[in-house]
Amino acid sequence: MSDSKHTVKQDQDVIKQHNKQLVLDVIRTRRPISRSEISKITEMSATSVGRIVGELAEEGLVRETSLTSTGVGRKAVMLDIEPGGRYTIGIDIQKKRIVIGLMDFSEQLITAKELKHTSLESSSEETIVLMAGTVLGLLEERKIPASKVAGIGIGTPGVIDYEGGVVQFSSTLGWREVPLAGKIEESTGIRTVIDNDLKVKILGEYLFGAAKGSDKTVLINVGTGIGSSLIINGDIFRGGSNSAGELGHMTINPHGNLCECGKRGCLQTYIDESALLTEARKVRGIGEIGELFAAVRANEPWAVEIIDRAALHIAVTINNIVCLYNPDTVILSGDLVEEFGEILEWLDRHCSVVVWEPFRDSFQVIASQLHGRSIVLGAGALALHQVTHN
Amino acid sequence: MSDSKHTVKQDQDVIKQHNKQLVLDVIRTRRPISRSEISKITEMSATSVGRIVGELAEEGLVRETSLTSTGVGRKAVMLDIEPGGRYTIGIDIQKKRIVIGLMDFSEQLITAKELKHTSLESSSEETIVLMAGTVLGLLEERKIPASKVAGIGIGTPGVIDYEGGVVQFSSTLGWREVPLAGKIEESTGIRTVIDNDLKVKILGEYLFGAAKGSDKTVLINVGTGIGSSLIINGDIFRGGSNSAGELGHMTINPHGNLCECGKRGCLQTYIDESALLTEARKVRGIGEIGELFAAVRANEPWAVEIIDRAALHIAVTINNIVCLYNPDTVILSGDLVEEFGEILEWLDRHCSVVVWEPFRDSFQVIASQLHGRSIVLGAGALALHQVTHN
Repeated sequence: MSDSKHTVKQDQDVIKQHNKQLVLDVIRTRRPISRSEISKITEMSATSVGRIVGELAEEGLVRETSLTSTGVGRKAVMLDIEPGGRYTIGIDIQKKRIVIGLMDFSEQLITAKELKHTSLESSSEETIVLMAGTVLGLLEERKIPASKVAGIGIGTPGVIDYEGGVVQFSSTLGWREVPLAGKIEESTGIRTVIDNDLKVKILGEYLFGAAKGSDKTVLINVGTGIGSSLIINGDIFRGGSNSAGELGHMTINPHGNLCECGKRGCLQTYIDESALLTEARKVRGIGEIGELFAAVRANEPWAVEIIDRAALHIAVTINNIVCLYNPDTVILSGDLVEEFGEILEWLDRHCSVVVWEPFRDSFQVIASQLHGRSIVLGAGALALHQVTHN
Repeated sequence: MSDSKHTVKQDQDVIKQHNKQLVLDVIRTRRPISRSEISKITEMSATSVGRIVGELAEEGLVRETSLTSTGVGRKAVMLDIEPGGRYTIGIDIQKKRIVIGLMDFSEQLITAKELKHTSLESSSEETIVLMAGTVLGLLEERKIPASKVAGIGIGTPGVIDYEGGVVQFSSTLGWREVPLAGKIEESTGIRTVIDNDLKVKILGEYLFGAAKGSDKTVLINVGTGIGSSLIINGDIFRGGSNSAGELGHMTINPHGNLCECGKRGCLQTYIDESALLTEARKVRGIGEIGELFAAVRANEPWAVEIIDRAALHIAVTINNIVCLYNPDTVILSGDLVEEFGEILEWLDRHCSVVVWEPFRDSFQVIASQLHGRSIVLGAGALALHQVTHN
């Protein structure tokens, strides 16, 4: 008997917590909004909505705004998020730079700091100290107490145990089994979540950028790293061990180029930045990828040939991903797309040949809209979600 | 006010219906089971469990079985499914045959009828009449009233609108926009659901066969058709328009063989039955695929070469699917695997080379266990699930 009583009690707490979360989510997504509209949407009683809004206001998360006419002459008090009620930190770790962003409760990016660093020259310990110090400095500078920070979210390339907060393996960073979330939490006192950078990136595009309004979206990243991620019905698709979407080592041709992984014909040997540079350097001693793009723009045949072959293989990849995932939107991101936007036209031409006909009109291809900021914004959103829903 | 009262009333009905379903599911999956064990698992009161069990018994779905000792000397009445309480029909439509199976409420296959037919020689109307007639005949023969049949489930190759019950396009059957579910319902008076055959097949393997206990499972079918399906956390992965998993037209080589779809290097041009036959016939005038397998078993080099190349491309496909879906289990099915089981060893050898190293130990490859019956069983389960959960 006491057992079942305990269960009922617990259930009530769970329901109360759920209802509070629901009201906060409704305000966040439909602000400004009146109490009666919240009642209508949530099907909760006016009394309950009133109590919950009171609690949220007391916690500094929600505020009343101006009176607004509701159409029939009556005026209602509208509710909005209190932007300064909570903050989140989003961190984007890449090979050569780290970007740390501060978002307010309305998920606006207030400020971002870019740290030049080279993961290959500094250990994971040094990198962690650098990040934690920068976060604390940023909060100090803005006079934001750590208690007002809902969480830190980090997007990082590699195989990530996002439940355990561990970077299991990242060839980009040269890290193995780094307990990143725990270390950052220890140094800052702020709850921290981590995930694979492309999973965080698609979350950013889904919430704030190119994928708004689509919920069957694939993101394909082509640059120094090759990868993909998928959002389906609002959830990040993870596969068995959070490693779904590892595009770079899909086999394009079993008798093709040898890859650094030891097998032949991996996609990344056809389209990633180092593959394009290796090809280009057979013809001309160029330094950076930008020089290749310049040569294409100057219509030099060897450069056009290199980019055209890459575009063909990206189009093939789009076909293969569309066949397996059947998305309605494909977002392209990464340096190749962001620094050489003309590639979209080339892709369009190749796709009209290599995409299987029944799928040809089933999806749109668009470029990332948030560019350098999608991981920071997505990581912040991940932190906010994890904290407010757990 | 009346609105909110209505909502509360509705919620109570929903909860009651949900609880009844829950009790039935617990009995189905853990039978035989006592009332008190059901209470413990569901956290429902003894009174509620007693009432629900009473209702289920009255509807002929559940029965009491023998008394069993519960360990401390007391004896409890155990509950079990009434196998004859409900029946389901599962139908597997392929190019050259249709299999219609009758399952009881414990999901045992009682009987199955195989109809030789050639879809290319008969219209969809004729095929529908044939199927509906056979279903009614089967029920007549077994003296089962249609009212005791929970539903008909159908698995069929092609692009299926499973919500609308329409075969949108099936190149295997030569059908376009056939409202299959509605037509069968009309002719039999029994509620009917349809889905893509491989999605139904993986459901069968997940519930009854090779994928029991795994819930991140991919099925790859290699035979007259090429395709795949995925179950993740118990749900069939559908993609944007129920077309996820269309493996056959993934591009293996953009400069490869021309496919019937008009593009180059589609996977099916390397591994499907007609591709293997076309190759074999360049060397010898064989009729059926079995003759190719016989030649391999006789160690004839040309035949070994054909199957070895197919095995390489299937291994490449396993790698590509594992990279994108990250499953823990890969089930292989279809004629090639079922009629030439030796291929598994060849695949093992190729996979050890072409699967990306970090994924190599992350999944197991197994052969379908239900062979010719997985679609029938899966279709029956689909029908039962749709009917009992809606």
